[in-house]
Amino acid sequence: MIQTDICIIGAGPVGLFAVFEAGLLKMRCHLIDALPKIGGQLTEIYPRKPIYDIPGYPTILAEDLIKNLMEQIEPFKPSFTLGERVEKFVKNEDGSFNLTTSAGTEVSCKVVVIAGGLGCFEPRKPEIPQLEQYEGKGVTYMVINPETYRNKRVVLAGGGDSALDWTVFLADVAAELTLVHRSESFRGAPDSVEKVMELAKEKKIRLMLKSNINAIEGNGKLTGVSITDQHKSVQTIPTDYFIPLFGLSPKLGPLENWGLNLDKSAITVDTFDYSTSVPGVYAIGDINSYPGKLKLILCGFHEAALMAQSAYKVVYPNQKYSLKYTTVNGIQSF
Amino acid sequence: MIQTDICIIGAGPVGLFAVFEAGLLKMRCHLIDALPKIGGQLTEIYPRKPIYDIPGYPTILAEDLIKNLMEQIEPFKPSFTLGERVEKFVKNEDGSFNLTTSAGTEVSCKVVVIAGGLGCFEPRKPEIPQLEQYEGKGVTYMVINPETYRNKRVVLAGGGDSALDWTVFLADVAAELTLVHRSESFRGAPDSVEKVMELAKEKKIRLMLKSNINAIEGNGKLTGVSITDQHKSVQTIPTDYFIPLFGLSPKLGPLENWGLNLDKSAITVDTFDYSTSVPGVYAIGDINSYPGKLKLILCGFHEAALMAQSAYKVVYPNQKYSLKYTTVNGIQSF
Repeated sequence: MIQTDICIIGAGPVGLFAVFEAGLLKMRCHLIDALPKIGGQLTEIYPRKPIYDIPGYPTILAEDLIKNLMEQIEPFKPSFTLGERVEKFVKNEDGSFNLTTSAGTEVSCKVVVIAGGLGCFEPRKPEIPQLEQYEGKGVTYMVINPETYRNKRVVLAGGGDSALDWTVFLADVAAELTLVHRSESFRGAPDSVEKVMELAKEKKIRLMLKSNINAIEGNGKLTGVSITDQHKSVQTIPTDYFIPLFGLSPKLGPLENWGLNLDKSAITVDTFDYSTSVPGVYAIGDINSYPGKLKLILCGFHEAALMAQSAYKVVYPNQKYSLKYTTVNGIQSF
Repeated sequence: MIQTDICIIGAGPVGLFAVFEAGLLKMRCHLIDALPKIGGQLTEIYPRKPIYDIPGYPTILAEDLIKNLMEQIEPFKPSFTLGERVEKFVKNEDGSFNLTTSAGTEVSCKVVVIAGGLGCFEPRKPEIPQLEQYEGKGVTYMVINPETYRNKRVVLAGGGDSALDWTVFLADVAAELTLVHRSESFRGAPDSVEKVMELAKEKKIRLMLKSNINAIEGNGKLTGVSITDQHKSVQTIPTDYFIPLFGLSPKLGPLENWGLNLDKSAITVDTFDYSTSVPGVYAIGDINSYPGKLKLILCGFHEAALMAQSAYKVVYPNQKYSLKYTTVNGIQSF
């Protein structure tokens, strides 16, 4: 049985930064993640993707942000259980919690912080005949390593931030890049939309709006996609890769049954301290929901800071935040 | 008359990052700061101080954070009016604003974002006879450049984060360092308290708790301070520098009279979008107040992001956030 002050479910950037904020208040953390590696989506989905909206970093690769966060929290010696999903959640009479993972690992803690990102997610797949048969043979749903596409022909599909960002990034990498989108408006940041429009204007990419992919072509390996354009005419575009980026379908998984108030597939929280409807349980980062919520990493950092102040009162119910030094001396250093 | 979408009052880290979040939504920003340099307190008070709580930076010098933020917002070409204080604030019938500075500079804008930090502030000075006569002659209220104190004798006074952080930092710099604090408990981060206690235990600093400085000694230049310790005995400690760090006394200045709802010396905001009680006026960073508020730079970053979403609706009242590309093409790029 692992004993800790705070058990953090999710070892993405927000879960990691929560260790820092908790550590400043002398609370120890154990993190559990269903993924086998630290870093959440940043490591799993886009390690080599540059991120532009981390304050103070004009640009940083996702994997470098995780590396830096790990260095930042190192003084507080967090422990990790990776590749296991929390299946069982029990609130004890004394207010503490017992969590059990899919592999039977048990954790006892005073506070539970859910920093589960999009939860256990799956890519949303468009309905195209034979699509799944070509997975790994030219069809993929996430860009793990952009170098795979160097000097290759690539067709992207989608109209959100992911499709826009990868179009901008891969424009310089791929031999030939096509972005197919069913509408003529995008759901992404206006700045990214403008960049994509400029790339199209400069003929650096082929942009097909009001268009849909209706078939896959190939002989065991992908050779092309068939596209219905805005004039309803059908054409085949030869390509090495087809990457539909229609988002991830978030699934909360087992925590749907923990008695937390939910708002669709997110956990409802109070912005005072990002507490959930169950005392002692907090939710921070992409997995929570509140009026005005933005799914940005930088917002998760803020949520982690306010959560830690509140969690302190749960972990140390009899202490004022303004600690006497004797009390501080009495706490094991990390 | 300067015309802009958003006028940001305060060019500290939070005001600067607001330019980034506004820029992503194609809103132009003009910044005004009473200080002659960009960076707010970070540049003015502690440029060479390492900061440890910027997410993703295990440590960064305050001035480097500002440099990086300037690089991050460069694509959005913000303009600046520095060394001038906003004195006049007029809300026009059409909802727009006219601001006029102490030097007569006029700015017309659709949204006002107050990112004024602690406002126009002054250091709080302890009541010690002759203290002001020794200002600049050994007495100072803020550490501008730690190198000034290399191999010198320094006496710090105070019990908050600033006193704790500078004690930790200057312990390795000064020839001899004394921290005097009137109480035996500190108001700072428990982790910093522990570090200071350890330094005292290892005799790397002299820590005098329940003690007060009652007199300054010197002959035109500071030579020592007289301290009453916890046993009421008085002793003189020879020193080259005496730095009382009792915080800054925040003064809102002219904006106290702009009709905004205030909570002591902070501006009350709604955490949905960090709007003030005056439509079109937002307050972000240390200057605002809401339940659970923490005065952390990282919280100001979050506030800037949510503010920008809301400001977008004021600047572009007839547009959906999900912009059509024709609309985007119609907006001047920066």
